[in-house]
Amino acid sequence: MAAARFVTFEGGEGAGKSTQVARLAAALADAGVAVRRTREPGGSLGAEEIRGLIVGGAADRWDARTEALLIAAARRDHVVRTIRPALAAGEWVLCDRFTDSTMAYQGVAGGVGREAVDWLRRFAADDLEPDLTLVIDVPVAMGLARAAARADGKHRFELRDRAFHERLRAAFLEIAAGAPRRCAVVDGAAAPDAVAAAVRDAVRERLGVALP
Amino acid sequence: MAAARFVTFEGGEGAGKSTQVARLAAALADAGVAVRRTREPGGSLGAEEIRGLIVGGAADRWDARTEALLIAAARRDHVVRTIRPALAAGEWVLCDRFTDSTMAYQGVAGGVGREAVDWLRRFAADDLEPDLTLVIDVPVAMGLARAAARADGKHRFELRDRAFHERLRAAFLEIAAGAPRRCAVVDGAAAPDAVAAAVRDAVRERLGVALP
Repeated sequence: MAAARFVTFEGGEGAGKSTQVARLAAALADAGVAVRRTREPGGSLGAEEIRGLIVGGAADRWDARTEALLIAAARRDHVVRTIRPALAAGEWVLCDRFTDSTMAYQGVAGGVGREAVDWLRRFAADDLEPDLTLVIDVPVAMGLARAAARADGKHRFELRDRAFHERLRAAFLEIAAGAPRRCAVVDGAAAPDAVAAAVRDAVRERLGVALP
Repeated sequence: MAAARFVTFEGGEGAGKSTQVARLAAALADAGVAVRRTREPGGSLGAEEIRGLIVGGAADRWDARTEALLIAAARRDHVVRTIRPALAAGEWVLCDRFTDSTMAYQGVAGGVGREAVDWLRRFAADDLEPDLTLVIDVPVAMGLARAAARADGKHRFELRDRAFHERLRAAFLEIAAGAPRRCAVVDGAAAPDAVAAAVRDAVRERLGVALP
């Protein structure tokens, strides 16, 4: 089977990333691939503790720079304790959100700035880059409606205004356009089965992996 | 009375910083100065939560970069929510540890590097610089013995080896030597009354403030 790969899923609220991570993980497992599913912020013992500080509480609990620093701290722990060891052990790592989310949420929509977010990315992750990033794109209204229907309560980011989420969507599409070799944009407005098929297509084509 | 000033206390474990912050706060209050005592990591609601992650647990709980990011996140919250509002309200702010501790602990002794720690300092604190920094210097053996005698349990940093603490002491002295207008080194090996008197002398001389 193919060597370990690092695949990230990006997109706004309610894009269906978690569902698609689970679907791809199942498809890879069926193909005999050892898979590690993980997420950001979080994905390691320490990073999950930091996540508790990031996603809970009022929308203005942290200013955008504090938020970017907490996310970078969680990322560093996640990279050191989970992602690198898993890749070294030959596992594929599928991650729900990674550095592109920080660029979109804090760097662009949150006003921290691209240069600072890029510095923090390098400090936290060194030269670790995804082999493939799937940007799941949905219209803002649809994503927010899906997120609102979830049972797990509102996260802080869902409480931001509509303009914030429009900036976010535009930022993800711009990131994908700027890194076309790494990123594939998938239409997340389709039914989950169709989105999962499009994700598998991208994995086959971009990573040269045989998948049913 | 004089305008609001920002005074930081720096030094290794068991230097007696907390005691000296309390002593100077009392002397300033006696002179009619509005004083805000605070500390890092911590000093605001959010930063104290982050502090819980930083100071607890095993010595290798976080790698040095994760630690530096968590400290910068706590600092940003502290600066935005506590220090700047207090200074704007005309209060003197006395802070137990600030950016020099990050430079000494993580930048020099912890191996993160000066350039990265300096970038994080500017990102978290913008152009906020102490008007006066009191570096309380004690021999490592004395500091560790004092810290061990405290009732509040060992913090993670006290668990590091002797060489770490020697690098730390040297780093604080080097920082002070490099910023002689901002920093005053005070001999912390003396009795607390004598140290407090030396601190008041430095405040009088450096900040031109009348203190009994």
